[in-house]
Amino acid sequence: MNRPILGIIGGVGPLATACFIEALIRKTPARRDQDHMPMIVFNDPQIPDRTAHILDHRNPNPQPEMERVARWLERAGADYLAISCNTAHYYYEGIKQSVSIPVINIMEETARCLAGEMGVGSTVGLLATEGTVASGVFQDYLHRYGLATMEPYDEAQREVTELIYNGVKAGGSYDPNQLLRLGEQLRERGSDAVIVGCTELSVIYQALAEKPAWFYDSLDVLAKRCVSIYLASREKGELVI
Amino acid sequence: MNRPILGIIGGVGPLATACFIEALIRKTPARRDQDHMPMIVFNDPQIPDRTAHILDHRNPNPQPEMERVARWLERAGADYLAISCNTAHYYYEGIKQSVSIPVINIMEETARCLAGEMGVGSTVGLLATEGTVASGVFQDYLHRYGLATMEPYDEAQREVTELIYNGVKAGGSYDPNQLLRLGEQLRERGSDAVIVGCTELSVIYQALAEKPAWFYDSLDVLAKRCVSIYLASREKGELVI
Repeated sequence: MNRPILGIIGGVGPLATACFIEALIRKTPARRDQDHMPMIVFNDPQIPDRTAHILDHRNPNPQPEMERVARWLERAGADYLAISCNTAHYYYEGIKQSVSIPVINIMEETARCLAGEMGVGSTVGLLATEGTVASGVFQDYLHRYGLATMEPYDEAQREVTELIYNGVKAGGSYDPNQLLRLGEQLRERGSDAVIVGCTELSVIYQALAEKPAWFYDSLDVLAKRCVSIYLASREKGELVI
Repeated sequence: MNRPILGIIGGVGPLATACFIEALIRKTPARRDQDHMPMIVFNDPQIPDRTAHILDHRNPNPQPEMERVARWLERAGADYLAISCNTAHYYYEGIKQSVSIPVINIMEETARCLAGEMGVGSTVGLLATEGTVASGVFQDYLHRYGLATMEPYDEAQREVTELIYNGVKAGGSYDPNQLLRLGEQLRERGSDAVIVGCTELSVIYQALAEKPAWFYDSLDVLAKRCVSIYLASREKGELVI
């Protein structure tokens, strides 16, 4: 292996995937094209909606399709994988077991990052899809790293869902400051930090003129982790996770 | 074929590829993730610099690597290809002949678009890499569609090169208005329209607060063409080019 190839299970959602690719490139120290990381992206928007299935298992299950894409990326030559969707991590164990290469976990990386920066015992607000919030998977990772989770009240959660589905996924319009206000509400209720825990919200977060230090973007954390894997692996000549 | 899969020869350069993917998504009429186009992106930044080879053939030739990526994308299931780099179209015929699927040509699409909108006999300013300008390939396509090309003077071309290599490829800083001023110079010299003919310049173009009607972004034209191929093909159930 000359340089490790990152495989991206993309299209979940499409704009969040583009945002993730841009974050990877902007975070890579590079003086020219050739310094950048090789990557293979399979943008497969046909993957069924994750939240719809988590909230009601009678809806189509996205797991088989995501596992198929993961295996496809491994066969195509990817050395490690990332999924540009938080909600999809409800299916993480299955996806991980379907391949023999590492799958970087956005939720675990975010929990680890926050535990390091905020300290064990902190309370963290979570802005995410209803699917992510209801599944409890993100909360479990935060708990494992010694952090308590604060969820938005129902009315605020409806605003979050509206931003994700009508604002970003449907290509509608939105005010980035609405995301900021939703974060501030959680801060006022006692959160030490707030996670942008849905990659559609990351698209909105990127448009914020000012990014408060207490606001942590999960897509940003994932991108930083992938870049550091690339840099360390390029240096060593083998995959360093 | 349910929906045609777009294959992207990416990484030339990396940020331009991310910009292209975002343009494809933003231009697709969609109410939800599942309405978007499937795509496979091979971001291979190891492809040698195109301009360096065009200006001096003793430098590494990027053509074999681009043909390898094109064949890889075809085997991976792509139904049609696009290359997110104007300068790479110097090697277009070879890439096209290395696969049996269509390769959409950014220069030809831009020339066709301009001939339709500006009318035959118009003069078009070209902002591009030294490689593209020196090769004469873009000028040939414009000529074929009845358009005359105006190139920047040497000093302005040096500014263009600086924006591309130090501004975007090296991740430096730049003022988007510099691109606008370079376009305005060509307008003052008599160009009816000006082409943003390098996908790194497209990254800068996207950052412009106001986009004059006489400014045509080649990446934008390519994205629109790929989206219309996707929509027509999805409708018909077969590839419509």
